Amino acid sequence: MTGTRRIPAERLEQFTRECLNAVGLPAEDAAAVAELMAEADINGSDGHGIFRLPQYIKRIESGGINVRPNIRFIREQPASAVIDGDDAMGHLVMRRAAEVAIDKARTEGVAWVGARNSNHAGPAALYAKMPLAHDMIGLYIAVGNANHLPPWGGTEMLLSTNPIAVAIPAEKEPPIVLDMATTVAAYGKVKTAAQRGETMPEGWMIDREGKPLTDPKRADEGFLLPIGGAKGYGLALVFGLLAGTLNGAAFGKDVIDFNADSVTPTNTGQLIVAISVEAFADVAAFKRAVDATIASMHASPTLPGFDAVRVPGERSHAVCAERGAQGIPVHAGLLAALGELGDRLGVAPPA
Amino acid sequence: MTGTRRIPAERLEQFTRECLNAVGLPAEDAAAVAELMAEADINGSDGHGIFRLPQYIKRIESGGINVRPNIRFIREQPASAVIDGDDAMGHLVMRRAAEVAIDKARTEGVAWVGARNSNHAGPAALYAKMPLAHDMIGLYIAVGNANHLPPWGGTEMLLSTNPIAVAIPAEKEPPIVLDMATTVAAYGKVKTAAQRGETMPEGWMIDREGKPLTDPKRADEGFLLPIGGAKGYGLALVFGLLAGTLNGAAFGKDVIDFNADSVTPTNTGQLIVAISVEAFADVAAFKRAVDATIASMHASPTLPGFDAVRVPGERSHAVCAERGAQGIPVHAGLLAALGELGDRLGVAPPA
Repeated sequence: MTGTRRIPAERLEQFTRECLNAVGLPAEDAAAVAELMAEADINGSDGHGIFRLPQYIKRIESGGINVRPNIRFIREQPASAVIDGDDAMGHLVMRRAAEVAIDKARTEGVAWVGARNSNHAGPAALYAKMPLAHDMIGLYIAVGNANHLPPWGGTEMLLSTNPIAVAIPAEKEPPIVLDMATTVAAYGKVKTAAQRGETMPEGWMIDREGKPLTDPKRADEGFLLPIGGAKGYGLALVFGLLAGTLNGAAFGKDVIDFNADSVTPTNTGQLIVAISVEAFADVAAFKRAVDATIASMHASPTLPGFDAVRVPGERSHAVCAERGAQGIPVHAGLLAALGELGDRLGVAPPA
Repeated sequence: MTGTRRIPAERLEQFTRECLNAVGLPAEDAAAVAELMAEADINGSDGHGIFRLPQYIKRIESGGINVRPNIRFIREQPASAVIDGDDAMGHLVMRRAAEVAIDKARTEGVAWVGARNSNHAGPAALYAKMPLAHDMIGLYIAVGNANHLPPWGGTEMLLSTNPIAVAIPAEKEPPIVLDMATTVAAYGKVKTAAQRGETMPEGWMIDREGKPLTDPKRADEGFLLPIGGAKGYGLALVFGLLAGTLNGAAFGKDVIDFNADSVTPTNTGQLIVAISVEAFADVAAFKRAVDATIASMHASPTLPGFDAVRVPGERSHAVCAERGAQGIPVHAGLLAALGELGDRLGVAPPA
């Protein structure tokens, strides 16, 4: 249970694909999900890639995910749509939603596509980045799949970490990719810390008396803290109404804790907005201006204790290059779980 | 210079209208701006209503605002537009942008309208709330008019408080109205504290050594802190790119400090998104669901030290009712400044 091993992303992707296929996902869908999960890992989203595979498999085997979904439109206007994911893997639902948003934004300038009856889809950045290849800005918001956040001043966990991601294309620089929970820490980080036997810093969670909680194994005795106090709560609330309630998806009391329940449909809600740069500006000039903005941030003198000023997505970009060359670090505990999973499904282990 | 006096909102609105008219705004435009500024005051945005009038007047008299603007489209798609404000009062530009967004969202489902060559427009909530009357959700983002925030880990003030507002209609409850700076405190609050001779709480600002700064009169020796550290910086950065750079408006180094410079055009950038509820859901069912969400938040038990759980906009709604009945509290220092302004412009003072 100590240490990590480096495994090539391709190998993890293959293992994921074969496992998903073994539990009934059609080959094409298994490949699409595995590709997105590997992309999560290679970009450093350790709580959202291969780490989630055992949970996804368990949910599929329990009937909590539909492996033969009919993903379809519920409502549609020229610049908007609501998609019913038919309880598919969230990756498939949101990839489709992104495609629709991009397609609509080409002629409309902007398009906003929401989803209901979706499921956990991995890191928000995956989908926010999809419009980039089309010279578009992407914005993604999701209702998290377990409530770990009370309203500000309250103790009832009615809210999730409801994240936002925004991806903005640059010219020579990597794109700016903000991907953040509305809580100080995402719950995936708490789970990762628990699995690794690590202690959490103060400020991530408090207990029901308002005291700091730093042992991730005691996570169910407390709750996450929102960024900026009432402000983070406000963001989590309005993001939940936009990504959940507006799409007819679960929010608040209705959210299913997908860690505790692998059977009940989650009715997960997410949304993606594609913004065509051309509808607002000369594309080349805009990208140059983003480069210039990045350069100006980098040029700022630093505060004591900081080695450099970075822009959102920069660390992930560096991690991606490093992991592409060195492989994905997989913790021994997770590797053992994957080995068992492979044994059970008749799939060769990833290492 | 001690205490405050209560003045009816109508009286402040009349004074504002007459002052703006006296410095050259056409009667209709002066009335529109005065109405929005009074709405800011009655809703509790003390840093954004009558408080700003002397500064606006100074800017108009200095030629920094165009009193006879030609507000026009630069780019337009079915669901998007960029408006050039021709250096008008920001209130006029963003009222027009909101009208365009609402009109487009009726047929397109969603519409996103950006502005360049605008100016300070008061509180973000004013514009986010405009779509509510049309059963639409409103979202507003702006580039602030002075840089008081460095990038995370840096010391060069390249960013403003870049606020976001989201307004969501309910059925029987008042709408949910989130209006927040991406900094712990908005700079307007610092200015108000300075004028009132108050001390700021720790956490609003730090000095160039990273130490807490609590004297608002020393505000120019330090900078604001973003919510959630790197996250709030990330939000301020992407909001600035969306509301500023994408619209061809100023952002980063190019932002004019409108407190220090009343002459140079600010090229302020703002954006508004109108989201037609009907394009996503049954309107009545959605509003009932928002009511139910509000009720569930209110029903949460409270942490020690809190008397109740509130939703965003609730406090402002209560302030509105109270100020409608009791009048707007105007600090003696501000009242004296308004009296001098009225004397100079030949306008009867508000009290």
